[in-house]
Amino acid sequence: MTYSVAVSGASGYAGGELLRLLADHPDIEIRTVTAHSNAGQKLSAHQPHLRSLAHLTLQDTTPEILSGHDIVFLALPHGQSGQYTDALTDVGLVIDCGADHRLTGKDDWDAFYGGEFHEPWAYGVPELIVGSGKQREHLVGATRIAAPGCNASTVALSLAPGIAAGVIEQTDLVSVLAVGPSGAGKSLKTNLLASEILGSANPYAVGGTHRHIPEIQQSLRGAGGTGDLGLSFTPVLVPMSRGILATSTARIAEGVTDAQIREAWESAYGDETFVQLLPEGQMPRTADVTGANTALIGLAIDRKAGRVVVVTAVDNLTKGTAGAAIQSMNIALGLPEGRALSVNGVAP
Amino acid sequence: MTYSVAVSGASGYAGGELLRLLADHPDIEIRTVTAHSNAGQKLSAHQPHLRSLAHLTLQDTTPEILSGHDIVFLALPHGQSGQYTDALTDVGLVIDCGADHRLTGKDDWDAFYGGEFHEPWAYGVPELIVGSGKQREHLVGATRIAAPGCNASTVALSLAPGIAAGVIEQTDLVSVLAVGPSGAGKSLKTNLLASEILGSANPYAVGGTHRHIPEIQQSLRGAGGTGDLGLSFTPVLVPMSRGILATSTARIAEGVTDAQIREAWESAYGDETFVQLLPEGQMPRTADVTGANTALIGLAIDRKAGRVVVVTAVDNLTKGTAGAAIQSMNIALGLPEGRALSVNGVAP
Amino acid sequence: MTYSVAVSGASGYAGGELLRLLADHPDIEIRTVTAHSNAGQKLSAHQPHLRSLAHLTLQDTTPEILSGHDIVFLALPHGQSGQYTDALTDVGLVIDCGADHRLTGKDDWDAFYGGEFHEPWAYGVPELIVGSGKQREHLVGATRIAAPGCNASTVALSLAPGIAAGVIEQTDLVSVLAVGPSGAGKSLKTNLLASEILGSANPYAVGGTHRHIPEIQQSLRGAGGTGDLGLSFTPVLVPMSRGILATSTARIAEGVTDAQIREAWESAYGDETFVQLLPEGQMPRTADVTGANTALIGLAIDRKAGRVVVVTAVDNLTKGTAGAAIQSMNIALGLPEGRALSVNGVAP
Amino acid sequence: MTYSVAVSGASGYAGGELLRLLADHPDIEIRTVTAHSNAGQKLSAHQPHLRSLAHLTLQDTTPEILSGHDIVFLALPHGQSGQYTDALTDVGLVIDCGADHRLTGKDDWDAFYGGEFHEPWAYGVPELIVGSGKQREHLVGATRIAAPGCNASTVALSLAPGIAAGVIEQTDLVSVLAVGPSGAGKSLKTNLLASEILGSANPYAVGGTHRHIPEIQQSLRGAGGTGDLGLSFTPVLVPMSRGILATSTARIAEGVTDAQIREAWESAYGDETFVQLLPEGQMPRTADVTGANTALIGLAIDRKAGRVVVVTAVDNLTKGTAGAAIQSMNIALGLPEGRALSVNGVAP
Repeated sequence: MTYSVAVSGASGYAGGELLRLLADHPDIEIRTVTAHSNAGQKLSAHQPHLRSLAHLTLQDTTPEILSGHDIVFLALPHGQSGQYTDALTDVGLVIDCGADHRLTGKDDWDAFYGGEFHEPWAYGVPELIVGSGKQREHLVGATRIAAPGCNASTVALSLAPGIAAGVIEQTDLVSVLAVGPSGAGKSLKTNLLASEILGSANPYAVGGTHRHIPEIQQSLRGAGGTGDLGLSFTPVLVPMSRGILATSTARIAEGVTDAQIREAWESAYGDETFVQLLPEGQMPRTADVTGANTALIGLAIDRKAGRVVVVTAVDNLTKGTAGAAIQSMNIALGLPEGRALSVNGVAP
Repeated sequence: MTYSVAVSGASGYAGGELLRLLADHPDIEIRTVTAHSNAGQKLSAHQPHLRSLAHLTLQDTTPEILSGHDIVFLALPHGQSGQYTDALTDVGLVIDCGADHRLTGKDDWDAFYGGEFHEPWAYGVPELIVGSGKQREHLVGATRIAAPGCNASTVALSLAPGIAAGVIEQTDLVSVLAVGPSGAGKSLKTNLLASEILGSANPYAVGGTHRHIPEIQQSLRGAGGTGDLGLSFTPVLVPMSRGILATSTARIAEGVTDAQIREAWESAYGDETFVQLLPEGQMPRTADVTGANTALIGLAIDRKAGRVVVVTAVDNLTKGTAGAAIQSMNIALGLPEGRALSVNGVAP
Repeated sequence: MTYSVAVSGASGYAGGELLRLLADHPDIEIRTVTAHSNAGQKLSAHQPHLRSLAHLTLQDTTPEILSGHDIVFLALPHGQSGQYTDALTDVGLVIDCGADHRLTGKDDWDAFYGGEFHEPWAYGVPELIVGSGKQREHLVGATRIAAPGCNASTVALSLAPGIAAGVIEQTDLVSVLAVGPSGAGKSLKTNLLASEILGSANPYAVGGTHRHIPEIQQSLRGAGGTGDLGLSFTPVLVPMSRGILATSTARIAEGVTDAQIREAWESAYGDETFVQLLPEGQMPRTADVTGANTALIGLAIDRKAGRVVVVTAVDNLTKGTAGAAIQSMNIALGLPEGRALSVNGVAP
Repeated sequence: MTYSVAVSGASGYAGGELLRLLADHPDIEIRTVTAHSNAGQKLSAHQPHLRSLAHLTLQDTTPEILSGHDIVFLALPHGQSGQYTDALTDVGLVIDCGADHRLTGKDDWDAFYGGEFHEPWAYGVPELIVGSGKQREHLVGATRIAAPGCNASTVALSLAPGIAAGVIEQTDLVSVLAVGPSGAGKSLKTNLLASEILGSANPYAVGGTHRHIPEIQQSLRGAGGTGDLGLSFTPVLVPMSRGILATSTARIAEGVTDAQIREAWESAYGDETFVQLLPEGQMPRTADVTGANTALIGLAIDRKAGRVVVVTAVDNLTKGTAGAAIQSMNIALGLPEGRALSVNGVAP
C-alpha cells in the first residue's frame, strides 16, 4: 500500500529534509506540502535542491488541509504543533518534529518552554535504551510520535549505555557540542547570518539554559538514571551547515574495568544499523554522517582524568530530526526500519 | 634603540604571524628570516600576505646565521629548538615558540614528547596567576622565554582564577576546545586537507593524550592547584582557519556564592588589557579576537549542574603564540607591554 | 543479473564517491577495492563515511586483481590508467575516471598532459549534444568509457546548446569557475591545506593552462563548433568541499531573439532528468546539487553587454565524476539510466 | 591636531570596520557613534570585537548629533545619506560610504537606484587613473568624499590601466567575482543566512543588473574609455566572511606585445603602496589582504584565447570600503596617506 503524506513547515530546513528522504520512499506519496507565510508559492522557491518535487505548491497550514492524509508530519516551531494535533484525529499517524510532545514532565515544560503543556507521545529514538529494552518497542504500531531534539538525542544516545550498565556515574555529566546553524532553523536572526558564523566559533545558551537539557535528562532517567542527573551542557555554533559533534564525559564508576566500560556501549549498539560504536582508537567526524541516518560513536577512557569521553557525530537534520522521524514511521507502520534511509554519509 | 631580530621557521604559520606583528613594531628591525627546506626562496612565496616584507629571502636555519642578532625567535617543531638554543649564547633574548623549554618536569616531557629534555624558560603568559602574583614579574628582564602552547595558555587562563581563589574544585576539570587547523601548522597531513575539514567537526587526541595537558596542569599548579589536577581535555578541529574556543568547566567549591565566583575572575583580570572578562550574560566568539592579542572570557554559573562554565576565545596564532611572544618580549625589554599588539579583532 | 565490480583508487575522493553510489545500486556487487600505498588497510580507514562497506579491505592495484570482474572502475591519476587498460581485455566494461582516454587529439594530449597517448573512449556525458544527437547514443553498449573532467563537462554542458543552435558566437567564450578543493583529489599539497583554503578565494591555472581546456573545446566542436573556440578559463578554489559553479559567457549572435536563445537550452535539456534549465530569473547554487547527479543551469541574457550568461552548478564528485560514470554504466548495460542516482541535492 | 569624528551606521559591518581602523589612528578621536534602531545600546553589543571602544554607546543618527564634529562618516544604506549631507554644512569633512554621491550621471542613478539624485563627490579611490593623472589629486583638500562600492573599485582598478594604455579593447569586458557575504551588510535576509552560504557558491544579480556596473563604467571612462564599455558582471557569494576575488578579462588590442601589456599595469601601480601588481606567474588570494588596505593584482596573458586575465584580491570592508575612506581622509587632511592602514593581511 502507498501512504499519503502531508508535510507542514515544508519551507523550513526540517521540512526540507523530511521531503528529501520521503521523495525516495517507495511506500509514500507526498501529496501535500504546507507553510505559513510562504503558502501559495512554489516549493522550489524555498527548497531548490528538491528537483523531483519542483511541481509542488505550498498550501496553507490548516487542520482542514492536513486532515485526510494517512500520515502528517509537523515541522513547526514549538508551541504551534499542539493546535493542529488536537484537530487531526482522523489522521492515522502524526509525527511532530517540534518539542510540543516530547517532555513527560509539565514542570520541565514550564521551566524551559512555557505555554500550554501537551501530552507526551512515543519518543522517536528507536535505539535508546529504555528500562531493559529499547525505545523501538514503544514505536511499534504507534499513532503519535514525537521526533527528538537533535542535540538531545545525540547526547542521550552517547551516555545512556554507560548509565544503564552502571559503569559511569550519573551525576556530573558534561557535554560540549559543536553544532551547525541549520539546527536553529531558517530564522532571520543576526547571530545566524553567514558573516557572523564564518570563521568563528560562537557559544550560546551557556550555563544550563538550553531547552534540550530536560529532554536529555528524561531520556537518561529512562535508561536507568535516577535523580537530577547533573548535566553541564554547552552548544557551540561552528561554520558547517549541518552536523553535531557532541563530546560528552562522565566519571568512571568505582571498580569497573576498561573492558566493562566498552562492553556497555558494544552491547547497547552492537546490533544496531544506525547507531554504531567505532573500533577502539577511532573517533567520528560530522562529515562522515552528512545526509545519513547514522550516529557514529567514539569511546575513549581517560584513567588519569577518571573520565569516559564519548564523542558522537550526527547530522542534525537527518538522524537528529527527519531521519529519526522516518525511521520511527517505518517502525510504526511495520515497514523495514531502514527504508529510504542511508547509513553512508556524503563526504568529503 | 632598535633591536635586530631573526625569525626562524619563517615560512610556517607561527613564523608568519611573528613577522606580521613585528613588521609594525617601531623598535624592531627584522634583519633575518630563516627556514629549512625553503631556504633560498623569497619569503613572499610562503607568506604572500606580508607585503611589507616581500623583499626578504629565506636563509638557512643555522646557529651561525641566527647568532649576532639582539633577539632570536624560534618557531620550529618541538625537539628542534634545543639544538639552537645552546649555540645562541651571544644572543641577548631568545624566544622559543616551540615546546622545548616549557615543561618543568622531565617526567611530563618524557611521557608526552620524548627526546632530550631541556631546561624550562620563563613562561610567556604575562597574565597568568603565579603564587600571589602574575607571571609578568618573571618576564621582566628575562633573556630566555618559552612562548606558550596555544591550547594550554587558553585553558590555563580560563581556570587559574577559580583555582587561585579556591572557588572551584581542582579535580575533575573538563575542557573541550573548538580549534582551527592553523594551530597544527603547515604540515602536509591528510587530516589537515581542506576537503577533510570543510563542513566537518573532527576530534583528535581524545582521551588524555594531547601534549598540552601537562602544560596546563603545570600552570594551574602554579596558580595554587595541588596534586594531579584531573583534567579531561578534548580538542575538536572545526572549519575556521584561526581561533580557539575553549569551554572549560569545574565543580563549584562548597559554600561559595555566585558573587565570590565572579569576583575571582574579576580580580584576576580587571586590570589586564589583553585578558578580559566579559560582562555577565555575554559570551565570546573567536571572530572577535581574530588577529588580536586578546583573550575574551565569558563566565556562567550553572547551579543545577553544580559547575562553573568558562568560555574563552583566543586567536591561536596571536594571543596563543606570536602575540604572547611579542608581549613577553616587550616586557623583557622594558618596552610598553602592548606595543605592536592590537586589542581589537578583525571581524566579521 | 548482478555485476561484479572492482574499484581502483578506492582510498581517494573519486573512488569514495563511486563506492557511495554503487553501494546502493541493486544490480552491483562491490567485490574488490584497490589502492596503491594504502593497500592492505581497511577501506574504513580512508572512507569512514562508507559504513555499509566497512568490512572491505584495500587490495593492491594490479591487472591480476582487477581482472575477472564484470566491471572495473579506474579512479587513478592521469597517466596511470593506460597501463591497466591494456591488461584488462577480459573485463566487459572498463570505466576510466582519469584523463587518459578522453582526448581525441594527440596534440592536445601532448600540450596539456604529456606521456603516452591513449586511444579515446566513449565520453561519459550522456546529455551532451553531439552532431544532431546526444552523446548518450554513443554510450549504449559501450565497453570502454571515459568519465569526464568535472570542470570540462560543466562548461561543455553550459555552452553546447548555444553553439549547436548558433545563437552564440563560438569565439571569445569566457568561463570562471568557483570550485571546491575535493576536485583536486586527496593530494598532500600546501595549497590544499584547510588553513590555506578557509576564508579565502584562490585562483589557479590562470591564463589558459588548465588541462580541461582542450576537453571543453573538443566537446564544443562536437556540438557544432568549429575552429579554435577561443576560451578563457579561470578556476578559483573556494571554501566548500564539493561543488562547481561555472559562470560562462558568450557573445550573442547577431539577429537572434531572446526567445531563440532560451529555446536553444530548453530544447537541449527539456527532456533530461539530470541536466535541468531553471525557469527564467532563477539561478542555481552548488548546495542544491550536493551529492546529486544533477547539473542545474541558470540562463540570463544581458543585452547591454551583448552576452549570454550561463551559470551551472554541479557536484564535482557526483555529476562531475562518479555519478557521470555510473549513469554511463547504466546506459552501457541497458539498465535504467538513473538507477542509484539521486536528482535531489543534500541542502542546506 | 586631533580631529573629532562621528561614525553613523556604527552597528553595521562598514561602520565597524571604520571604527576598527580609526581606533588606531593617532590623529583621530572617535567622539560619537550612531545608529538607528540600535540607538541607546552599547556599541559592544554590536561590535564585540572592538574592545578598545567598548565604553561607547550608540546615539541616534540625527543631523544634530552628527553636526559639530570635524569629520563625519556615513555608513548608511543608499538613499539615506542624502538627507544628512544637506544638514552637515558645518562639518569640515563628510565621507559617505554609501552610493548616494558616487554617480555622476542621473540616468545611471535612476536606472540602478532610483529616488532622489545627489551631486557627485570626490571619488575615494586614490590610485585610480583619471585622465593623465590619478584620482588622488582630486582628493587633496576635499571636503566631501564618496567612498567607493567594493566590487566597483576592485574591477575599476583591475581594468583601468589596460584601458588607459590602450592595450585592451574596451568593449566586451567580462568580470566574475567571488565575494564574501559581509559586503551585503548585516541585513536579515534568508539568502545571507549561514546555512544558505556554508558549503555553497551562490550567484546573484546575474545578467547586468548589479548596481556597481555604472560605477565601474564611469571609472573606466575616466581612465580613458569611451562609449558604453560593454561589461558582463557576475558576482558569486562564497563561504568566506570577507573578500573579493575579481577575475576580469578583456580582449587584447591588436598589435600590442606582452611586454606592453604588462607595462601598462606596472606603470600604473609601480609606485603605489596599496595597489600592487604581483610578479609574473603569481596570483593573489583574498586571505592575503584580509584586514589590509591592499589590492593585489595578478596578470596573465592568454594568447590562445586572445584575452588578458586580471585577478584582483581585495578585502571588501577594508580597501573596498572603510580603508579607502580613511586613506582618502588622510589625503584630504594632508596626513600621511597610509596612516592607520596596514599593507599586510591577516593570514592564514
